[in-house]
Amino acid sequence: MTTVGILGGGQLARMLALSGAPLGLRFLVMDTAGDACAAQFAPMVVGDYTDTAALAEFASKIDVATFDFENVPSQSAQWLADRVPVFPSPRALAIAQDRLAEKTLFRELGIPVPDFVAIDTREDLDAAIAAIGTPCILKTRRLGYDGKGQFRLKSAADTDAAWQALGAQAAKVGLILEAFVPFERELSVVAVRGRDGEFRSWPLTENWHVDGVLSASLAPASVDAAMAETAFAYARKLAEAIDYVGVFALELFCRAGELLANELAPRVHNSGHWTIEGSETSQFQNHLRAVLGLPLGDTRMVGRACMLNWVGAMPDANAVLQEAGGHWHDYGKSPREGRKVGHATLRAESAQDLSAAVQKVGQALGRGEQVAPVIAALRDSPADR
Amino acid sequence: MTTVGILGGGQLARMLALSGAPLGLRFLVMDTAGDACAAQFAPMVVGDYTDTAALAEFASKIDVATFDFENVPSQSAQWLADRVPVFPSPRALAIAQDRLAEKTLFRELGIPVPDFVAIDTREDLDAAIAAIGTPCILKTRRLGYDGKGQFRLKSAADTDAAWQALGAQAAKVGLILEAFVPFERELSVVAVRGRDGEFRSWPLTENWHVDGVLSASLAPASVDAAMAETAFAYARKLAEAIDYVGVFALELFCRAGELLANELAPRVHNSGHWTIEGSETSQFQNHLRAVLGLPLGDTRMVGRACMLNWVGAMPDANAVLQEAGGHWHDYGKSPREGRKVGHATLRAESAQDLSAAVQKVGQALGRGEQVAPVIAALRDSPADR
Repeated sequence: MTTVGILGGGQLARMLALSGAPLGLRFLVMDTAGDACAAQFAPMVVGDYTDTAALAEFASKIDVATFDFENVPSQSAQWLADRVPVFPSPRALAIAQDRLAEKTLFRELGIPVPDFVAIDTREDLDAAIAAIGTPCILKTRRLGYDGKGQFRLKSAADTDAAWQALGAQAAKVGLILEAFVPFERELSVVAVRGRDGEFRSWPLTENWHVDGVLSASLAPASVDAAMAETAFAYARKLAEAIDYVGVFALELFCRAGELLANELAPRVHNSGHWTIEGSETSQFQNHLRAVLGLPLGDTRMVGRACMLNWVGAMPDANAVLQEAGGHWHDYGKSPREGRKVGHATLRAESAQDLSAAVQKVGQALGRGEQVAPVIAALRDSPADR
Repeated sequence: MTTVGILGGGQLARMLALSGAPLGLRFLVMDTAGDACAAQFAPMVVGDYTDTAALAEFASKIDVATFDFENVPSQSAQWLADRVPVFPSPRALAIAQDRLAEKTLFRELGIPVPDFVAIDTREDLDAAIAAIGTPCILKTRRLGYDGKGQFRLKSAADTDAAWQALGAQAAKVGLILEAFVPFERELSVVAVRGRDGEFRSWPLTENWHVDGVLSASLAPASVDAAMAETAFAYARKLAEAIDYVGVFALELFCRAGELLANELAPRVHNSGHWTIEGSETSQFQNHLRAVLGLPLGDTRMVGRACMLNWVGAMPDANAVLQEAGGHWHDYGKSPREGRKVGHATLRAESAQDLSAAVQKVGQALGRGEQVAPVIAALRDSPADR
């Protein structure tokens, strides 16, 4: 009997536990919140990630640890790794937690990135804006999540406001100024790497964000084979460079036919939720297979899939449940503004059928804006295989 | 927040909970055994099904009740139904629990059944054997499960032995003598009926038993459309007659091109486990949708599927995990002779690919006998759609 410990007890931990149960696994979740939604389906240790007593209890009951939450302090991850196997490694986690380290690594590996400069002082900021130009984005190096800890500068006139908003963070977590990329599309590679180095990727996914939060995903993204291969090669190179084990997402911008790396998410990812129904093996089960050293599952698609995120509160389930390929995912959370509370996946055999289902659901729920870009992308998609 | 109570905490309850979590449901399981495997993923009340205090605690914490175990005493089901909604109804449960009531209903509805006679005394048995002929099977009317409580008579010379084995049960649970049907194939209809009467069936499944326990299932069964329609019509007629709500299985024998009803299983069924990966909506989620009055999910197949049961102990997972369409289901039970501890589902787009995968897994696990009939059936199957 193998027990998998998961640091963080949100929807990712919940879906990991649900998809790992058929492998005969037990789970133990650790979270700072007693009402974390994964605890509805797995036992939980409640405690701060820096609380050594709680961590010790957690470690004593598990065989291997992994993450639902990427911002677990890397010292806590290391403390745990000294006692039980931890995947991905604290080093991989540390790189992903630090925008500067991450982007520096991208650059070292020859993965194109938007221009960026580390910022320690107000003088650094002035110089960086002059070098990079505007628009640009000032971000904290660490602990960014869904657009928090970011300030967008339209012109140099915004410098004072940006420094006022984030300057105090420079000494604490560090800052980085990034060029704003006027991208046409956002794509993500969701991929998995095993303990033996085997690498597999799901088909490329196209994503749409609203207010910095993922709103919709479509797979497969309609891109030519060469671009998809380039994206997979970047993901593979990155995973190999940091000996990554498990599922991760590499977020990419597409600008004028060129891919730029935005961010590495060292965990199962919202843009891979469609794999539950839309792929032979879900990202959740493959993450566990990787972490446990089991053979990786097939990442081929089964049809086409669109994922719609529910943020703040759950809409009416019936509109989705009535669709032949409609799958509902309620995370069992209480509603709260800006909170990811669930998603729906629509699956169909053809782009045409998928488009019709997405349109119907959008209409029934009064969410025309949310589905519009998906429908537009499906209109442009090549003929079904 | 809706909590579904499940009477019985075995693998069916476990898979119900896992598939119902995405609907935002909570679960409470009641079982007589503290180590029931569903309790690994859902809270549990431990108690005998006739223990009113335990039932009262169970009832107080749930919004609706259903079954993992069909032999919950019908008085207990009725006690519960007086307090919370229970689906299927205690009446439907009672009919399915009683072979005589069940077969009498089949006959009344014009659903062909093997000859049968109720047996109360040794004299009844002699007369019934003379009327029905041999071979035949003496069975208890109630509490039969996986071939237990049955005695097969090759000739009238076995009458003494049969009566010695089961005669004492005549006064307790009643007996029934059934003609032995030299069937060529065993099929099952797994179907679902909603609270509003909507009826849906998954494609017909072909099944193979070993020592009275399901060994393998294949879907879709290779039968002509007319036979499939007949089977669906029987299932529908039966469900409507008893106002059945939820998933059920109708087990059928096929003899000389004719279908004979064997048994109604008033719950999600082992021969429908392939629906988890092989169908748009699994039997588990559709059972919950039916019980809760939600729209029923699509029952169309996604490719073809073969389910292999693991009885007694789990084999090596790797042989299945290495297959592209291989899905592993370990119920988290300790090994025990004759116990269903898990299953695997192999999914593929074509009969040829499925056959190759089944053959490979059979070989790797040294289970040639288990997979042989599946491979033979796939050889005879019509061209892929």
